[in-house]
Amino acid sequence: MAKVFEKKELKKKSENLSDWYTDVVLKAELADYGPAKGTMVIRPYGYAIWERLQHILDTMFKEYGVVNAYFPLFIPYSFLEKEKEHMKGFSPELAIVTHGGGEKLKEPLVVRPTSETIMYHMYAKWIQSYRDLPVLINQWNNVVRWEMRTYLFLRTTEFLWQEGHTAHETEVDAIRMQEAALAWYQKAYEEYYAVPVIAGIKSNKEKFAGAKTTYTVEALMPDGKALQGATSHNLGQNFSKVFDIKFQNRKSQEDFAWQTSWGFSTRSLGGLFLVHGDDQGLILPPNIAPMQVIVMPIRKSDLSNELLDEYVQNIKEALLNGGVRVKVDAREEPSVGRRFNEWEVKGIPVRFEIGHKEAEDNTVTLVRRDTGEKTVVKRSDMLVTVEKVLKTIQDDLFEKAKTFRDKHTHEVSTYDEFKKIMETSRGFIKAFWCENAHCETAIKEETKASTRCLPLEDIDKNLDGVCVKCGAKAIHKWLFAQAY
Amino acid sequence: MAKVFEKKELKKKSENLSDWYTDVVLKAELADYGPAKGTMVIRPYGYAIWERLQHILDTMFKEYGVVNAYFPLFIPYSFLEKEKEHMKGFSPELAIVTHGGGEKLKEPLVVRPTSETIMYHMYAKWIQSYRDLPVLINQWNNVVRWEMRTYLFLRTTEFLWQEGHTAHETEVDAIRMQEAALAWYQKAYEEYYAVPVIAGIKSNKEKFAGAKTTYTVEALMPDGKALQGATSHNLGQNFSKVFDIKFQNRKSQEDFAWQTSWGFSTRSLGGLFLVHGDDQGLILPPNIAPMQVIVMPIRKSDLSNELLDEYVQNIKEALLNGGVRVKVDAREEPSVGRRFNEWEVKGIPVRFEIGHKEAEDNTVTLVRRDTGEKTVVKRSDMLVTVEKVLKTIQDDLFEKAKTFRDKHTHEVSTYDEFKKIMETSRGFIKAFWCENAHCETAIKEETKASTRCLPLEDIDKNLDGVCVKCGAKAIHKWLFAQAY
Repeated sequence: MAKVFEKKELKKKSENLSDWYTDVVLKAELADYGPAKGTMVIRPYGYAIWERLQHILDTMFKEYGVVNAYFPLFIPYSFLEKEKEHMKGFSPELAIVTHGGGEKLKEPLVVRPTSETIMYHMYAKWIQSYRDLPVLINQWNNVVRWEMRTYLFLRTTEFLWQEGHTAHETEVDAIRMQEAALAWYQKAYEEYYAVPVIAGIKSNKEKFAGAKTTYTVEALMPDGKALQGATSHNLGQNFSKVFDIKFQNRKSQEDFAWQTSWGFSTRSLGGLFLVHGDDQGLILPPNIAPMQVIVMPIRKSDLSNELLDEYVQNIKEALLNGGVRVKVDAREEPSVGRRFNEWEVKGIPVRFEIGHKEAEDNTVTLVRRDTGEKTVVKRSDMLVTVEKVLKTIQDDLFEKAKTFRDKHTHEVSTYDEFKKIMETSRGFIKAFWCENAHCETAIKEETKASTRCLPLEDIDKNLDGVCVKCGAKAIHKWLFAQAY
Repeated sequence: MAKVFEKKELKKKSENLSDWYTDVVLKAELADYGPAKGTMVIRPYGYAIWERLQHILDTMFKEYGVVNAYFPLFIPYSFLEKEKEHMKGFSPELAIVTHGGGEKLKEPLVVRPTSETIMYHMYAKWIQSYRDLPVLINQWNNVVRWEMRTYLFLRTTEFLWQEGHTAHETEVDAIRMQEAALAWYQKAYEEYYAVPVIAGIKSNKEKFAGAKTTYTVEALMPDGKALQGATSHNLGQNFSKVFDIKFQNRKSQEDFAWQTSWGFSTRSLGGLFLVHGDDQGLILPPNIAPMQVIVMPIRKSDLSNELLDEYVQNIKEALLNGGVRVKVDAREEPSVGRRFNEWEVKGIPVRFEIGHKEAEDNTVTLVRRDTGEKTVVKRSDMLVTVEKVLKTIQDDLFEKAKTFRDKHTHEVSTYDEFKKIMETSRGFIKAFWCENAHCETAIKEETKASTRCLPLEDIDKNLDGVCVKCGAKAIHKWLFAQAY
């Protein structure tokens, strides 16, 4: 805690987003840099947010029938080579173990960048009949994809995630699973992170290495860049054919399993922090905040504080019983003002100020982190009011982010407009594209904008347009942006 | 599931413990072998047990004020070299990453065998004043200690665990923490795993590499070997001095933090499975079982099963509402007998058989996994009865294990007796030892038995004895056993 106050003021979000971001992640004690290049430490406050998210997603997974398991960290190098697209996608990012137990290994081991290959090697052993399907397995673990320059949460060599891996009798079942995962991710972003996302399908170039199709949720950050929120892949039979996941189907014929994989990572937390903060620090949406209310007793050193302390204790218990996540900050130092500032940096949605006056009047002074608005609330109305305020903050944060996103989503019809927007305010661009990788590559080279997705709501629209780049026939408006 | 029935009968526990163990772990689908040497896959059923244990311990940690965090998997090699005893202890077991992102690394990275060094490097940055103490951080993660031959759960290159790492103002605080962790571990074993343990302190030779003292809980397995259940270390100032974790104390003087670390791993599950199973498979104590009751409707293909299904559904909901973890097995195949067998192998504590007769009579037939005892229970008494039976099974399993343990704990006064026991039935031996490492080493070489611990209850007893090995003065009776 001490360090927040040793350093000068927080950098301003309004001046430089990325400087502010790094500063606030460090000062709010969400994370810190690890000693090895590209690594980070998730500190307890940051990890508590991740634990909440884990609980939220894990509950949805289990209701659907997904079960958790754990597969090894180390994958024989040869496994990755089996699916060629997969290998091509991951080989530049691999960390390789060459020595173990004091000896050089005969075959080097890859530290998992993702677990398709090792899991499907096991699935081939476990699946024989349609009766063994579906297999719906998820794991919460760490993966490694080499990075030289750390950007806390958003770009790190190691990150935490969940990876769901399923096997089904039919492609229809697999697609239903792929869509269910996408819906969970959209819900996590919109209802918990209060970050609006656009759900869509990736282009062939941007899809997961080895997938048939990739679904994604895409969010817009305050600097006009897109963050790929989470992805869900229909793997078709690509992996089941190379890993030999065969089963006897209902007609007693041999068939290869239809598969999906889907993942949501700690990178998402970077998006959460970027979207909602302000010059005073983080602002956490109440539905994901580990602490929703920070209660600050304002003691007087020249008075007896006994009644005040009792009043505060009573309020804490009432909030806990009402299901509100609350913490009392009864520290004697630093000063009250500094402690206000500290909880603001940490983005606690609501602050209660409770002094002798409040204790005598049976009130609390409630302060909203997002607007700074102060209200004096009667003790008898407290629980109802705080629940309403938390809901309002959640909704307001979402609406604010959505308004920003919509304002920075541009429909363009000429490439000049496209380039001009990407040179200035950036944001999302919706534009006709001929779906030829050649144009996609050229657009990216010239504007740094990649295809983010074809929004799901637009897939069935067969429009009559021309590609913003080459002028050829185009039937879909794709979403473009520069990306993190 | 199918595989259980393809293979011949389960191997017999009564004939060969270690063959039975491997067989039951595979057939109950707790785990499987991973493709790389020394690795294993924890399958959903095994992982569900670990998830329950995580929830149990994590709740205890949080009540005490411990918070979770996440530190990097990769540790610079030089960090391990800083604390010499620590390095000596771990260097033979390290996995080393030499290549990352397509290039040879300047400094190789160690895949964490434990996280003291990397965590304390960070603690030194975070801790300046006594106001920053205590730091009570835990992480749930994976660690790697090289093994050539896998013994499922009990000996694997990678395992899952929690590692708590704390820093305190005084050694008294640190010891209090060390003791609290030991008490949690004892509780996990005795109240949840139904495995009696002996809590004690390790000898200098057997303590953790880098610790001042190590506490342990030791359990006895059915083959008379000891399993080290979990350990809790007082690190003194050994690490804080080499990692420079300094703070200004209450007298404004500079001091080094006092530290502890403590860990509980998936190896413990091996002990759980070994202790309670029988020739029919696993027996899971109800407090740790992911499923406590398996409900088996016995349908008739020539009758309408509508009322039966309704009755079963009603019972399932009553059990769920009563807080019982229940699953209904309404599969049409394999046969009922095979499915009974399958759940027996998986060790579900209680089976409900519900056929048309039960549905008509408003009863259920309750079968205990541990004794095979069958009782017909009235529907109206069902919830009370099942709760009582689950508690009885839990208690009986513990008592049975304790009786076995006590029967195989021998107090010996001569080295001949010592050797004879270790050559035949093994078990725990309590014997005077002079606390000289020379005798400890000689005993281990000659009998394969190591000092397991000096039981906590015996530490303050200053007895008047002679070392079982050398005849020199000895004041404590130590616990010896051959160990896993």
